[in-house]
Amino acid sequence: MTHVNDKADPITIAYIGGGSREWAWKLMSDLALEESLSGEVRLYDIDYAAAQDNASIGNRLSSRTDVKGKWNYTAVRSLPEALAGCDFVIISIFPGTFEEMASDVHTPEKYGIYQAVGDTVGPGGLVRALRTVPMYVEIAEGIRDYAPEAWVINYTNPMTICTAALYEVFPKIKAFGCCHEVFGTQRLMVSMLAEMLGIEGVKRNEIKVNVLGINHFTWLDSASYKGLDLFPLYKAFVDKHYEEGFEARGTEYWKTDIFAAANRVKFDLFRRYGLIAAAGDRHLAEFMPPSYLKDPQTVAECKFSLTPVEWRVGHRKEQVLRNQRLAQGEEQVDLKPSGEEGVQQIKALLGLGELVTNVNLPNQGQMLGLPQGAVVETNAVFSRNSIKPVIAGQLPLGLHSLVARHVTNQQTVLQAALTKDKSLAFQAFINDPLVTLDVKDTESLFQQMLDNTKAYLPGWSI
Amino acid sequence: MTHVNDKADPITIAYIGGGSREWAWKLMSDLALEESLSGEVRLYDIDYAAAQDNASIGNRLSSRTDVKGKWNYTAVRSLPEALAGCDFVIISIFPGTFEEMASDVHTPEKYGIYQAVGDTVGPGGLVRALRTVPMYVEIAEGIRDYAPEAWVINYTNPMTICTAALYEVFPKIKAFGCCHEVFGTQRLMVSMLAEMLGIEGVKRNEIKVNVLGINHFTWLDSASYKGLDLFPLYKAFVDKHYEEGFEARGTEYWKTDIFAAANRVKFDLFRRYGLIAAAGDRHLAEFMPPSYLKDPQTVAECKFSLTPVEWRVGHRKEQVLRNQRLAQGEEQVDLKPSGEEGVQQIKALLGLGELVTNVNLPNQGQMLGLPQGAVVETNAVFSRNSIKPVIAGQLPLGLHSLVARHVTNQQTVLQAALTKDKSLAFQAFINDPLVTLDVKDTESLFQQMLDNTKAYLPGWSI
Amino acid sequence: MTHVNDKADPITIAYIGGGSREWAWKLMSDLALEESLSGEVRLYDIDYAAAQDNASIGNRLSSRTDVKGKWNYTAVRSLPEALAGCDFVIISIFPGTFEEMASDVHTPEKYGIYQAVGDTVGPGGLVRALRTVPMYVEIAEGIRDYAPEAWVINYTNPMTICTAALYEVFPKIKAFGCCHEVFGTQRLMVSMLAEMLGIEGVKRNEIKVNVLGINHFTWLDSASYKGLDLFPLYKAFVDKHYEEGFEARGTEYWKTDIFAAANRVKFDLFRRYGLIAAAGDRHLAEFMPPSYLKDPQTVAECKFSLTPVEWRVGHRKEQVLRNQRLAQGEEQVDLKPSGEEGVQQIKALLGLGELVTNVNLPNQGQMLGLPQGAVVETNAVFSRNSIKPVIAGQLPLGLHSLVARHVTNQQTVLQAALTKDKSLAFQAFINDPLVTLDVKDTESLFQQMLDNTKAYLPGWSI
Amino acid sequence: MTHVNDKADPITIAYIGGGSREWAWKLMSDLALEESLSGEVRLYDIDYAAAQDNASIGNRLSSRTDVKGKWNYTAVRSLPEALAGCDFVIISIFPGTFEEMASDVHTPEKYGIYQAVGDTVGPGGLVRALRTVPMYVEIAEGIRDYAPEAWVINYTNPMTICTAALYEVFPKIKAFGCCHEVFGTQRLMVSMLAEMLGIEGVKRNEIKVNVLGINHFTWLDSASYKGLDLFPLYKAFVDKHYEEGFEARGTEYWKTDIFAAANRVKFDLFRRYGLIAAAGDRHLAEFMPPSYLKDPQTVAECKFSLTPVEWRVGHRKEQVLRNQRLAQGEEQVDLKPSGEEGVQQIKALLGLGELVTNVNLPNQGQMLGLPQGAVVETNAVFSRNSIKPVIAGQLPLGLHSLVARHVTNQQTVLQAALTKDKSLAFQAFINDPLVTLDVKDTESLFQQMLDNTKAYLPGWSI
Repeated sequence: MTHVNDKADPITIAYIGGGSREWAWKLMSDLALEESLSGEVRLYDIDYAAAQDNASIGNRLSSRTDVKGKWNYTAVRSLPEALAGCDFVIISIFPGTFEEMASDVHTPEKYGIYQAVGDTVGPGGLVRALRTVPMYVEIAEGIRDYAPEAWVINYTNPMTICTAALYEVFPKIKAFGCCHEVFGTQRLMVSMLAEMLGIEGVKRNEIKVNVLGINHFTWLDSASYKGLDLFPLYKAFVDKHYEEGFEARGTEYWKTDIFAAANRVKFDLFRRYGLIAAAGDRHLAEFMPPSYLKDPQTVAECKFSLTPVEWRVGHRKEQVLRNQRLAQGEEQVDLKPSGEEGVQQIKALLGLGELVTNVNLPNQGQMLGLPQGAVVETNAVFSRNSIKPVIAGQLPLGLHSLVARHVTNQQTVLQAALTKDKSLAFQAFINDPLVTLDVKDTESLFQQMLDNTKAYLPGWSI
Repeated sequence: MTHVNDKADPITIAYIGGGSREWAWKLMSDLALEESLSGEVRLYDIDYAAAQDNASIGNRLSSRTDVKGKWNYTAVRSLPEALAGCDFVIISIFPGTFEEMASDVHTPEKYGIYQAVGDTVGPGGLVRALRTVPMYVEIAEGIRDYAPEAWVINYTNPMTICTAALYEVFPKIKAFGCCHEVFGTQRLMVSMLAEMLGIEGVKRNEIKVNVLGINHFTWLDSASYKGLDLFPLYKAFVDKHYEEGFEARGTEYWKTDIFAAANRVKFDLFRRYGLIAAAGDRHLAEFMPPSYLKDPQTVAECKFSLTPVEWRVGHRKEQVLRNQRLAQGEEQVDLKPSGEEGVQQIKALLGLGELVTNVNLPNQGQMLGLPQGAVVETNAVFSRNSIKPVIAGQLPLGLHSLVARHVTNQQTVLQAALTKDKSLAFQAFINDPLVTLDVKDTESLFQQMLDNTKAYLPGWSI
Repeated sequence: MTHVNDKADPITIAYIGGGSREWAWKLMSDLALEESLSGEVRLYDIDYAAAQDNASIGNRLSSRTDVKGKWNYTAVRSLPEALAGCDFVIISIFPGTFEEMASDVHTPEKYGIYQAVGDTVGPGGLVRALRTVPMYVEIAEGIRDYAPEAWVINYTNPMTICTAALYEVFPKIKAFGCCHEVFGTQRLMVSMLAEMLGIEGVKRNEIKVNVLGINHFTWLDSASYKGLDLFPLYKAFVDKHYEEGFEARGTEYWKTDIFAAANRVKFDLFRRYGLIAAAGDRHLAEFMPPSYLKDPQTVAECKFSLTPVEWRVGHRKEQVLRNQRLAQGEEQVDLKPSGEEGVQQIKALLGLGELVTNVNLPNQGQMLGLPQGAVVETNAVFSRNSIKPVIAGQLPLGLHSLVARHVTNQQTVLQAALTKDKSLAFQAFINDPLVTLDVKDTESLFQQMLDNTKAYLPGWSI
Repeated sequence: MTHVNDKADPITIAYIGGGSREWAWKLMSDLALEESLSGEVRLYDIDYAAAQDNASIGNRLSSRTDVKGKWNYTAVRSLPEALAGCDFVIISIFPGTFEEMASDVHTPEKYGIYQAVGDTVGPGGLVRALRTVPMYVEIAEGIRDYAPEAWVINYTNPMTICTAALYEVFPKIKAFGCCHEVFGTQRLMVSMLAEMLGIEGVKRNEIKVNVLGINHFTWLDSASYKGLDLFPLYKAFVDKHYEEGFEARGTEYWKTDIFAAANRVKFDLFRRYGLIAAAGDRHLAEFMPPSYLKDPQTVAECKFSLTPVEWRVGHRKEQVLRNQRLAQGEEQVDLKPSGEEGVQQIKALLGLGELVTNVNLPNQGQMLGLPQGAVVETNAVFSRNSIKPVIAGQLPLGLHSLVARHVTNQQTVLQAALTKDKSLAFQAFINDPLVTLDVKDTESLFQQMLDNTKAYLPGWSI
């Protein structure tokens, strides 16, 4: 990895979860568009056939003449094989099957607890974490043993707990977590500039923000575009759209796209707490007491959707078919930037351009008031073989309390998962803001959810 | 205050709230029983007549031959007069009238929120704090200007916020907060030793404990009597009494005494979190989500009472009558130790015997994991002109989250009260664990409670 | 200051010390070369005539057709006049006269203590600090009262104490300290790349470094150029030049230029401590025990010079003459970049391009192991109205001790200066590594130096 | 170890260094005088015969009728045998032989560096630490494996590094370091009370002090006797005796007793820094730059002695002879309190009486401004199975710098010893205040001292 020109030497990327669809296509596309990088991508997945399909897709793509970054894709059968001597590790796995996810999301509904996503916090997020941590223990041990110097990029949710688990097992790991939710908020401000001031053509990363908090519950206490302070403008923008909400593709677009929202939660949080919440409404709502997720009607009034896992099952089927067509050359990968930043981050870590962006890392002091070591999301400076967090400061007291409660809960869940301690896990479960049942109902719900995911909890007494 | 023998030079105590009944009688009694101290007590109260009555009672008592500690009691008409040059300040005030307290306790009941006491946290505690802080600002300014070197003992609730307000206004103040709730838990263990091991005659302060947390939500992570670890014994004791509860004066004594409880909350918390909660059930229940305060039936099952303010009104009438009899010599003060530690603390601060006991002080590191400056309750070493906190350590994660949420809320309320910021106060209000209403109902409740106490919120826009 | 294009609205800069020569010319030149900025520069100096001359020079320059950035220069007679409503404040003053500086530098020589510069630490730096702090108190009060929102750039030495004094007086000040010493080390690595690898044309700021420490005693624990780790190369470079030293303009160039050095101190420190010292040898040597400054012969062997104040007096005379020629148009300002970064920082703070560079700021956690609030030098991210320090990490123990000793000493000197406490100042003086005299000689030296600067120590008992 | 009366169950003490003379006699005597304790003492020493002699002495003593505490003494041949299942571990070893100690103390004298003791800091203390750490690694591993729950009392010097080494190897160890130097300062104040105020019969532990700092360089920022603040009195006392010094047994007693001193160093430090230094002058002087240890004449003016190791050799011979007489019953152990506190501490840890006293422990926040984990000396509360440090606060800046320098140096030496890193050890060596040689001489001295102790540095490249 030594290079002094503007092109890195061939590098090796291990992709854990390399049989996945969307994330893999995005990465392939971004790599294909980047001329300064080339090398090998090793795809590892418990579904080896899926990894093989992706290898075919990747190699087919790489042979195209319109592709600038040339890569060799190989499917591998074991974690050590993927990791040995690699330069970068990308982790993007789906923990368990849709069956467990259906339990995460829908079992709580029987008790009146609704979740829009169910993969981060709330009953679903916590149980998903219990299931995911053992997998991350294995991955972290693999990295420690086979690629201790590699940079590790995590995309899996629950982001905070997955990243923290890596550091818990292997404290010297060079891992960080990436998420595009902040980008969405920057794009909202791009739309705002167009609508409110007629300024067109602004790029997402020209919106400069200070990022504080934890993944999916991140906050901005400053935002600017060139010399313009965006806070007064955002206030006017919220005032204008508070009742109806705003979505660049139409206020009612959330009815069309199950992942869309009209930002009514974000706007309400701004009024109540004064900072700009920097994640999608569907995530934000899950971190709050059940104001925005009280019942399906409230959710509809807030203008976003609960995603039934059944929808995900159907969507997956489409992806699998598309993957087959791509693997067999019946369809071509559409070469366009994914909007993700992974490849830019890799470049920066290789010395090809400094980058300041938001990232999930253990707290070394970048978030004042949150415990050392807790994984937090703030800006950081990426340069050659280095990520240095920027001191983001402190949340105002009211928000601090909301965030800190989740931080401790996530630390509790991680400890419970590592020590297989059901009682400790329950302490976190009943402390989640969405859980407002009485103790008996909470115990009953918790037990059902554990039962439904017990195949992924080896060694637990459930 | 220079003395090298076992008797202090005459000292001056300013008693703010010196017209109060029970607390004043207790202090007089304790002072009368202590031979090493003597001097002057200046009684200041907004009800001057009540202070005069107490002066009469005190001087009448002091003239008795069976009294060892001789004191001169005077009622004074102003705060500066009380404070000027005094050695100790005792603050024990009742903020507002029973009318405001009735709103604190009972207005939330209309929304299904029940509080046993309503003076610490919960809707009642928070609104009481808003009302009390301006009074404490005035007191702190008085101490800063007239008695900056005096030691200040606070007894008023909400203890944490009152003590914090003193430090906020006058950072060099030598103030601490005293509370007897931990003593009650020590006494429970005295009863336990008698019942479980047949060990009789143990004194309360022979039970050695490590105290962590905040006032009324304090925890013990170790307890011993001489060479005996009390944790295994407490576990057996809880197992024995878990269903029925325990009270030294009888399991059903809570039906007789409105302040009594059968410790069922304390026992349940021990099972769930592993530490011994060191306050009465009526306080503990208010810090938790509404599991123990769900409704009056649940409260009865938990075997404690909600205290109607009407009861307090009646009780006050009896006290006033008794006060008159005492002032006119128709009845005599009953000379017996109050069970409070104030006089022992004063002695220790005068150099008459080192004392290790629990106390409320700004966090300098005695509570790991809680913010610097937040008022916390731990043990401390009292010696001549010195209180040094003992490092109590850290609460386990599950409990830490419960405690930290209140800590931040209390900091938020204090800031809101100091800056008269209704929106900030509401952020704390809706973040209280007892408040599980939706946003609109919460706003409505908050507004009513503020309206009912607005006479004590000068300068607020309500 | 609201702008959304690539040119800022007219801005106002207050230049404290605006009668100075070199620094002023550099700023004028940099401003003239920058097309995105324009506005007014108010020059304030206790030597009003000098400020007037500079105004003439500046306006003459601004009228030239080859100048892109147009500015209006005015000399003002008072600090408030300079500050009122300005956007930026630049402070670059000379505290006292050459007479006091001669005492700072040369009085210690009578006792065998040699200093190369004498403006930062050592006996000279400490006494200079005592003299400078009262001036900075006045400036900070002015900024607090007349320009509380302005960004303040300090260039005066002792950098650390000057910057700290500003924050001590006005904690909300938006001040930072700038110094070019790190740049010099980056340039050394540019030369190294050319010599060792034949890579030519590298720009100074393409050398990416992590900066730790305090001004003039800063350290790099990583350095890279594009994908190249510069540490192994630096080790080879040091091995090659350890004995003879290295200077891009010739190993013996230090004999020609009194400010030059052959980096022999820097190379020796690398061998002993493993990090790259990022300041000139003349500064570095002053922070160490007198190994490199034992006597003039040792200094010559180290290949740098002690700067006699007499030399500065002569040099100043030349500058004054040149200033007159410039003011009268007999000579033209030479339009070329100064190598300083002030104008780039101003642009970044106006929203015109994010910048990551080293800067002196109070420690908020960017330097682990050093006290909060101590002024330290690390990288920071500059963006619109924001400087966020980057967490630089911790120095290795051996270096930490050397740096921490100066940090405490500087805090002690600042407190001594603010409270006019001679005994406290002496505690710092005798604790300086260059001071290895016995107590009596130290007291005698200290007294002489204070006597020589007493005109600038109002209110002291000396 | 379960007991609820005022006598502990039989306990087992492992004495590492159990062949030593004076310390062993003192412990035996104290144990014999304490009626509430009894049990077994296992004596382990690399000199097994010496341990056997001590066992004889102990058992002979225990059989006497005037002895209240009955103990069974056994000499054991291995560390595991001593440790297995014991309740307490006492460590009091002499690292190496007098030959190495002679090098520690006297080799530096060839370079003009004088040390009074040479076992704590200075060249001697640092090299002694390098030699001792490997022994402590072995002991800590033994405790981890054979007695992880035992309380461990360290008496060996260098106290700070020995105690820190135990925690480094076995972080959950329950170890603390005990030293009587603070007691000596309390006794000085007892003498002061008699002389200045005619108050006689005061006990050492009636002098209440707040202790800050590190072992042998501890400081008091408050001291009282009953209601009396001792600081003004101490100031008068210092003023009175500043020139001549003071020793209860006579100002010139230092000429008689090689361990005595006239407190002239202590008095001078009080004048310079305002706090009371709480260790003997012979230790204090070693922590400062060579003001008090400049040369033998200065030492004599300061009225204390340098202890030649030859003296120790002679003294040891006497002790050995006496030991033989004691073992054979030709002489009787003199039953009197040693003045040490070990037995009181053991009692308190068994639940027999709370104790507040000074102790060496890793910093958990008791010393503000010093790094977490560094071993510091402050007060702590001893109770059943618990030692909780008291928050002592922060040293004033001037003293903080002096202390912090040693703290970092000690951390550096410990790391160097654990990693066998000569270069790192040298960084600490040259940073010691007593070392004011130039680099070459320092390297030469360091090399000689390492050579002289290399038998105890297994695995080092020297």
